Amino acid sequence: MMKILVVNCGSSSLKFQLIDSETEQVSASGLCERIGLDGSITYKKNGEKYQETIDLPNHGVALKKVLDSLLDEKIGVIKSLKEIDAVGHRLVHGGEKFSSSVVITEEVIKEIETCNDLAPLHNPANILGVRACQEVMPGVPNVAVFDTAFHQTMPKKAYLYGLPKEYYEKYGVRRYGFHGTSHSFVSKRLAEIAGLDINHSKMIICHIGSGASISAVKDGKSIDTSMGMTPLEGLMMGTRSGDIDPAIIEYICKKENISVEEMTMILNKKSGALGLSGISNDYRDLIESRNSGNEDAKNAIEVMVYRVIKYIGAYYVALGGADAIALTAGAGENNAEIRAMIMSGLSALGVVMDEKANAVRGVEELLTKPESKIPVYVIPTNEELAIARETARLTK
Amino acid sequence: MMKILVVNCGSSSLKFQLIDSETEQVSASGLCERIGLDGSITYKKNGEKYQETIDLPNHGVALKKVLDSLLDEKIGVIKSLKEIDAVGHRLVHGGEKFSSSVVITEEVIKEIETCNDLAPLHNPANILGVRACQEVMPGVPNVAVFDTAFHQTMPKKAYLYGLPKEYYEKYGVRRYGFHGTSHSFVSKRLAEIAGLDINHSKMIICHIGSGASISAVKDGKSIDTSMGMTPLEGLMMGTRSGDIDPAIIEYICKKENISVEEMTMILNKKSGALGLSGISNDYRDLIESRNSGNEDAKNAIEVMVYRVIKYIGAYYVALGGADAIALTAGAGENNAEIRAMIMSGLSALGVVMDEKANAVRGVEELLTKPESKIPVYVIPTNEELAIARETARLTK
Repeated sequence: MMKILVVNCGSSSLKFQLIDSETEQVSASGLCERIGLDGSITYKKNGEKYQETIDLPNHGVALKKVLDSLLDEKIGVIKSLKEIDAVGHRLVHGGEKFSSSVVITEEVIKEIETCNDLAPLHNPANILGVRACQEVMPGVPNVAVFDTAFHQTMPKKAYLYGLPKEYYEKYGVRRYGFHGTSHSFVSKRLAEIAGLDINHSKMIICHIGSGASISAVKDGKSIDTSMGMTPLEGLMMGTRSGDIDPAIIEYICKKENISVEEMTMILNKKSGALGLSGISNDYRDLIESRNSGNEDAKNAIEVMVYRVIKYIGAYYVALGGADAIALTAGAGENNAEIRAMIMSGLSALGVVMDEKANAVRGVEELLTKPESKIPVYVIPTNEELAIARETARLTK
Repeated sequence: MMKILVVNCGSSSLKFQLIDSETEQVSASGLCERIGLDGSITYKKNGEKYQETIDLPNHGVALKKVLDSLLDEKIGVIKSLKEIDAVGHRLVHGGEKFSSSVVITEEVIKEIETCNDLAPLHNPANILGVRACQEVMPGVPNVAVFDTAFHQTMPKKAYLYGLPKEYYEKYGVRRYGFHGTSHSFVSKRLAEIAGLDINHSKMIICHIGSGASISAVKDGKSIDTSMGMTPLEGLMMGTRSGDIDPAIIEYICKKENISVEEMTMILNKKSGALGLSGISNDYRDLIESRNSGNEDAKNAIEVMVYRVIKYIGAYYVALGGADAIALTAGAGENNAEIRAMIMSGLSALGVVMDEKANAVRGVEELLTKPESKIPVYVIPTNEELAIARETARLTK
C-alpha cells in the first residue's frame, strides 16, 4: 500500500489529492489559490470542507501549508510526512520528448523545460510544483504525468499541419493533443465495461468539460485528437473558440486594433460558449437561458453539439468504424440534455439513445438501447486517480 | 439563343469565355495577364491558341483587347459586339447580402462593395471587370454570380464561430463558404446521374483542386462547407494551410518575428501541400516524388487525403447519412491515385471502389462497385458554364 500525493500546479494555484494506491480512495484533497497574490486554502476530508485565508507568497509555502493540513491533529490524515511514498505531478506539455510518465530527475526537468515554449503559461507553473516538493519533501520520488503523452502514438497524417515543414522541424509546430490522462483512463475503462479486447478495438472518447477534446483510440492507442499544438484547437469550449478560419485573426486584429497576443488571449478566454452566448461558459446556465427563449444561448449550445457530432463522424471514418463511444468530464458526465443532443445527432451511425438510462449523473452507464449500432457510455473521468496509478507503478 | 461572355477578373488578370446559351458550347476563351504591369493575352478558339504580349494598363484596355480578338476577322467568332447578349461575372464574396445571382445595377455594386472587407484582394478586382464591361459595352446587361451564394442556406450552427458574438454582428465574421458555383453545379448534376430526387437527397461534394472545399448538400441546399469566412479554412490545399490551431499564428509571429499580415500571407501562399512537402502544390509532382522515396511528399499527400476523409465523415453525420458523393475539380477529376486513396479511406461508410472505373480522367463516371453503400462519382465541374446559365436565366 502506498500513499500518493497528486499535485496539479497552475501559475497561482495548487490542487492536491492524497490517494491510497491500493483502495484508490482519496483521504484528503484541496486547493491553494491566489499564490503570490494574497492566498487561500480549501481543504476537504470526508466531505467536510475547511477554508482559510493565508499568506501564500510562493508554491513552496503553499505546499508546506498543504502538508501541515495533512499532518494536522484535528483535520489531518497522516501522522508523519514519511507516510507519503511518492508525488505525482500533472505536466501539461511533454512535447515529443515524453510518450509516457516518468520519474523526475534533473535531466527530466531540463527536458520538460525545452517544452516550455509550447505551454508558456502551464509548464513553468507545473515545474514550480515539482521544485516545491523536492524542497519540502527531500528524498520522496516525484513522477511527471503528461497531458500530451497518450497522444504521442498519433501517425504523421494526424499530427502534421499544412504548414511550411520547417515550422515543425525548427519550432515543434504539430498537433500534440491534451487531456491525454483522461482519454487514456476513460478508453481503458470503456474497453472493460463494453467488453472489448482493447488491442482490437476502435473507440471514440469525448471529454466534454469546460475544456473539451475528442480522441480516436485504436487498439488502445490514440490515433487522432481534436486539440492541437495547444488546447485552443478543436471543439468549441467554455471560453475557447476551437476551430476557426485562421484568416479571422488578422481581420479582427485590424478591426479592433489589437495585437495578435491580445487576439489569442480573446480566443482562449473570451470566446467559445461564453463569447457566442454573451451569457456563460456553463451549459447548465445556457440551457436555462435557452429555455427562457434566449436565442444566443440556443446558438451556443447548438454550435457546441454540432461540432462534437462532426468530430465523431470524422473519427468514425478515421478509425474505420467504432465499437464504442464514451462521454466524460463536466457536461459529458452530468448534463443529460447535452448528451441527448449529441446522441440524437448520431443517427447516421445507428446510435439509438435510451432516454431513461440517459437520466444519470456522474456514474458509469450505458446510454443506448440494445439495437444501437454503437453503444455510448458515460464514464466519469478521474485524472488524479490516473496520475496516482502511474506514480505508484513507477515508484513501487 | 444567347451569346454570354463570362468574365472572371483578378487584380491583374481577366479570364473569359464566350458561351452559347443553347448549345452550351464555348466558341472562344482566354486570359489576359499582368494587367497594370506589362500585359499579355492568350486567346483560344477551336483548340488553337494565340498569344500576344501587349500593353494592358488597366482592366478596361484588357477587356477592349478581348473584344477586339472576338471580333477579329481571322481568329474572331462574332461580327458585331451586338451579338453579345449579356456578361456574367464571377464575384467572390457576396457576404450575407446575396443568396443568389443578380443583375448588376449601381445599387448592387454598392452592396457588393460593402463586402469588400471580407475579400479585399478579390471583390475590388471583380468590380473592376464589371466597370470595364459597363464602359466598353454600354447597354449590355451584367450579372453577378457569387462564390458564396450557394452556401447562404447554411444553418446558424454551421456558420457561427465560437467567437464573441459582436464579431459576427459588427464585422460579419462567420462561415460563408466558397466554390459555391461549383458545389451547386456538381450537386445538381450528381442528383441527375445518381437518379436522386434532389429535394430528398443527401450529397457530399468534394471540390479538390489547388483550392479545395467540401460541402454537405441536403435536399439540394448547402448545409455546411469547409471553407470559412475566407477560402483559407478547411481542407489542406495546394498552398493554403486549411485548419490549424489558431494559437500557432501568435507562436510563429514571435518565433519568426513577423507580423500577423505576413503570417496570414504565408498561410495562404506558402503553406498547404507546397509548404509541407517543400516540393510542389501539384499532386502529380508529389506522387512522382513520393514514388521516388521522398518522405515529405508522402506526408503532404497523406495529410491532404486524411483531412478529406475526415470531412466526409463529419458531413456524413451532419447530413444524417449520404446518398452519393461526388469528386470534382483538378485532382478530383483527373488524379486516379488521390481518388483511390480517398475512397479506400471510406471503408467505414461502406464505400467499395471499382478500380477499373477509377482509371478515368475528366469525364463523368461512377467509381464504385454496385455493392458500395454510397456511390462515388467523378463529375467535372464547369463554373463558367454555371455562370453562363445563371446569366442567361436572369437576362433572357
